[in-house]
Amino acid sequence: MLVELDEDECWELAGTMPVGRVVWSTAAGPNVVPVNFVAHEGRIVLHASAYSALVRETDDSMVAFEVDEIDPFTRSGWSVLLRGRAHVAFRDDPGDRLPDVDTWPDGTRRMTLVIDVHQVTGRRVMAS
Amino acid sequence: MLVELDEDECWELAGTMPVGRVVWSTAAGPNVVPVNFVAHEGRIVLHASAYSALVRETDDSMVAFEVDEIDPFTRSGWSVLLRGRAHVAFRDDPGDRLPDVDTWPDGTRRMTLVIDVHQVTGRRVMAS
Repeated sequence: MLVELDEDECWELAGTMPVGRVVWSTAAGPNVVPVNFVAHEGRIVLHASAYSALVRETDDSMVAFEVDEIDPFTRSGWSVLLRGRAHVAFRDDPGDRLPDVDTWPDGTRRMTLVIDVHQVTGRRVMAS
Repeated sequence: MLVELDEDECWELAGTMPVGRVVWSTAAGPNVVPVNFVAHEGRIVLHASAYSALVRETDDSMVAFEVDEIDPFTRSGWSVLLRGRAHVAFRDDPGDRLPDVDTWPDGTRRMTLVIDVHQVTGRRVMAS
């Protein structure tokens, strides 16, 4: 059975997971990459390397961000889709305090990408 | 630490998971939906409702398919990205035997969507 989630449930569930997936369009087809993130005041915040395809190809573009949790044993789970415009933010801008993101891979990730979310949908799959 | 996976590893890991995520581009921005799937002879096979956005918007289009496994406790995981062209297949076509897909949600999913994969990449994130 598929059940729609309301917007508050979507944000709450998304906030429980350490990893989500950024999705964006390129001339060669769509792309997707899992990232650590923080959900913060209607925005998704994540870190990326300055010269990554993610930063190069999503700044000022429409993107989607997907978070889910799946349980193979009960054949159930939920997924949340957050759509909005991505932009590169500068972390030391005093007027725009962003939360820090606990990023698992080591390496320098100087850039902060912010997704201003304007559409939130989600659903739960329950065993029938 | 990020380590690239080779193509065989990618297919093998993808085959261990019951759910992956189809990603496609639309005029309103990219879209993504988790689905049950089978990885079969260089293709991804999944079922969908005849009038779903997934079928309507991906037939004969470039799509991406993402599979991952993430372990918050060890802060590690892997992800695989399979890119290719999607097309609607007819299950009763005798010349094109496709595996059945164990789809969790109930409801009629008459259409079979096949992604002919032509690019496979993957990576593993390990605790540093």
